[in-house]
Amino acid sequence: MPETALFDRLKDSCAADWRGYVEHAFVAKLADGSLPEAAFRHYLAQDYLFLIHFARAWGLAIYKSETLEDMRQAAAAATAILDVEMGLHVEYCKGWGLTEADLQALPEASETMAYTRYVLERGLAGDVLDLQVALAPCVVGYGEIGARIAADPGTKQDGNPYRSWIAMYAGEEYQEVMRAAQAQLDRLWTARGSDARFARLAATFRDATRLEADFWQMGLDAASPTARR
Amino acid sequence: MPETALFDRLKDSCAADWRGYVEHAFVAKLADGSLPEAAFRHYLAQDYLFLIHFARAWGLAIYKSETLEDMRQAAAAATAILDVEMGLHVEYCKGWGLTEADLQALPEASETMAYTRYVLERGLAGDVLDLQVALAPCVVGYGEIGARIAADPGTKQDGNPYRSWIAMYAGEEYQEVMRAAQAQLDRLWTARGSDARFARLAATFRDATRLEADFWQMGLDAASPTARR
Amino acid sequence: MPETALFDRLKDSCAADWRGYVEHAFVAKLADGSLPEAAFRHYLAQDYLFLIHFARAWGLAIYKSETLEDMRQAAAAATAILDVEMGLHVEYCKGWGLTEADLQALPEASETMAYTRYVLERGLAGDVLDLQVALAPCVVGYGEIGARIAADPGTKQDGNPYRSWIAMYAGEEYQEVMRAAQAQLDRLWTARGSDARFARLAATFRDATRLEADFWQMGLDAASPTARR
Amino acid sequence: MPETALFDRLKDSCAADWRGYVEHAFVAKLADGSLPEAAFRHYLAQDYLFLIHFARAWGLAIYKSETLEDMRQAAAAATAILDVEMGLHVEYCKGWGLTEADLQALPEASETMAYTRYVLERGLAGDVLDLQVALAPCVVGYGEIGARIAADPGTKQDGNPYRSWIAMYAGEEYQEVMRAAQAQLDRLWTARGSDARFARLAATFRDATRLEADFWQMGLDAASPTARR
Repeated sequence: MPETALFDRLKDSCAADWRGYVEHAFVAKLADGSLPEAAFRHYLAQDYLFLIHFARAWGLAIYKSETLEDMRQAAAAATAILDVEMGLHVEYCKGWGLTEADLQALPEASETMAYTRYVLERGLAGDVLDLQVALAPCVVGYGEIGARIAADPGTKQDGNPYRSWIAMYAGEEYQEVMRAAQAQLDRLWTARGSDARFARLAATFRDATRLEADFWQMGLDAASPTARR
Repeated sequence: MPETALFDRLKDSCAADWRGYVEHAFVAKLADGSLPEAAFRHYLAQDYLFLIHFARAWGLAIYKSETLEDMRQAAAAATAILDVEMGLHVEYCKGWGLTEADLQALPEASETMAYTRYVLERGLAGDVLDLQVALAPCVVGYGEIGARIAADPGTKQDGNPYRSWIAMYAGEEYQEVMRAAQAQLDRLWTARGSDARFARLAATFRDATRLEADFWQMGLDAASPTARR
Repeated sequence: MPETALFDRLKDSCAADWRGYVEHAFVAKLADGSLPEAAFRHYLAQDYLFLIHFARAWGLAIYKSETLEDMRQAAAAATAILDVEMGLHVEYCKGWGLTEADLQALPEASETMAYTRYVLERGLAGDVLDLQVALAPCVVGYGEIGARIAADPGTKQDGNPYRSWIAMYAGEEYQEVMRAAQAQLDRLWTARGSDARFARLAATFRDATRLEADFWQMGLDAASPTARR
Repeated sequence: MPETALFDRLKDSCAADWRGYVEHAFVAKLADGSLPEAAFRHYLAQDYLFLIHFARAWGLAIYKSETLEDMRQAAAAATAILDVEMGLHVEYCKGWGLTEADLQALPEASETMAYTRYVLERGLAGDVLDLQVALAPCVVGYGEIGARIAADPGTKQDGNPYRSWIAMYAGEEYQEVMRAAQAQLDRLWTARGSDARFARLAATFRDATRLEADFWQMGLDAASPTARR
């Protein structure tokens, strides 16, 4: 078993990229409540489409897992996304007059497509460790972001329109999911990792981290008069 | 949509093989209570290993599905196997002094290996329709067998040591799973089927049906003095 | 068999996207020789990385094919990329002082990543028809572009620095590859297609077509003072 | 890098199973020329079907490889099977009045199905190292068998009807393929192996070795009056 947890080693291996993701302007604006609703709305609708593919990735993780513990953790993750997390997005979007059918009919942004297919393909080409490392920036990163901004005195609490989003990822339930994902990474590293594999895993982690940052940027761009498309 | 349900067309396309499976001597002996315990024990222990791979196949089905309805049905199936059906096997085996760790350490019989890998590989090479057709002889066949022998006046009820096994697959819960699987096949056929695909799907269905019959035979052989190995 | 070839039906289903790809400014500038060398250089170096993933996609096509004819066509395509087409890119790049090791060490542009992973993942999730439809905009599109600009009197022939690129894709060898790919699409459509599948296949084709256009744009942006990133 | 080559470590980890395969009665009878033609004929016809799936496995290896060297080696292997090795089988079978169309129409024996799907599925679930370890008993084992019986003074040379089969696998061309496969295993082990992975890889190697032995047995059984089925 690594003395340092695998997740921490991966994060340290691309520290600037990691900060570019977890401290992205989108996150800062979520925390201080200044994020334009149009940015959040575009983000959340695309995140709904993203979650469909992430549930697929957890399905793949069931298939690729080599222990019942890992299979059950993956099945629980797939079910949580399909039965809970997507429902929360639908609830949010209902407030803006968007139905679930509307969400499903949305064109997929290129950032959504790029990130989700990267993770799925990495998991199919490699083994379950490659797959879980590709998933980690999302699963663990959201927990880290939620906990940090919930604890930050600079975060706007009263009247912050994004308070429930922050509360979800800072909440004990999600924090436990995050810790379980980190523990799973350490188990998989013990079973299938090696020093020689680290560089390749770190490249996967960095790519996925950058694709997460692009996903926040996509949200910001949606509210910007000089948006790219 | 086909006038005749896809499952019925597949079954009719290999009627003799289907009967060889659902009316196998193993099933007849389960029904009249004459099945040697050694046969059932070997079957059930291998079925535990089989279920691990079937849960993997449902994970793959989550990944391959193209609608949320199909994804949710697959996630529920994976969870039911991992959290319920495997537990029932463990309970049964406990009665024979076999722990779950014992089960996991068992060598996989060649019949278990042959059937499970066939289904998984078919699903990976083809699309979600190929995968679900490969799964159908198991999912639907067990429901058909359970319902038939439960309703058969010739079936021994009192003192039949396999009564709870029969009750599980004849029970309303499993019957509903079976009907949902048939409905899903029809949806997938509508979405992705064609007359030209039918012959290939029928070959998959027939192969999986034969592999199911081999699985029963493996159970019988385990209790036979002239067992193959 | 369709009265109209599948490729033509797919192209017609997203005519504006198709024109946005095959008549992209990058292509027009290749034809009249006005494309900045920096644009072509960036494009070609990324296309080298792209080809690695396309060879992987043809490997996947060998695995997914259901006839020896399709397997052999896929093996020939993988070999042609690995042993010929990549070598031509290496030759070109040598002229700019870039070695093959330099090419392999290049960071993958997000457009390269987005397109290649989309195709691979589509092929893994679906069947061989889904995979070949995702590959078609590249395989057939390059042949169409090459033939059109080679035949266009407006194309600069003498002194056009991109003449050999045009000659390669307009050449009889590549034109035959293109025709064989179209014939293969028709065979696969006959074997596995259906009216109900068409919309989904058309969406795959449209997505891949747009990702091709993004790939040209990436080349142009590399030479633009106001490049996106 | 291992001091002992990975292949040798794998072989040593299941020495009795390995001998059961490379010294199988089928092989001994091939060497002394006493193998009934019916046994060889059944074996060779099933081996033709086997090769189709092995070419698919090499296609998968192209997809899963992480270096151009490994991709090229896999593409060459797929091409050699599709364009050379299958042709040799077709030639042989022609002598018995079997056309290639006859071969393709043969029902797949359960031993063929079991072995090929096991290898393919292992490769899909795991990474390229898992896949190559599953392929190794076939690729390397045939070379070892060919070399050993060609060098054995007890082997019947003159008038042995299986002389050309022996010559093919003992020949320098195949021996070079075998050595290249062993070198590839060592490269992959260096890149992705670890002590913790060894037990799992050894189990894969042992399973594939047993499935090879079952494949020889299938040949013998075909010529036996007490054949299993």
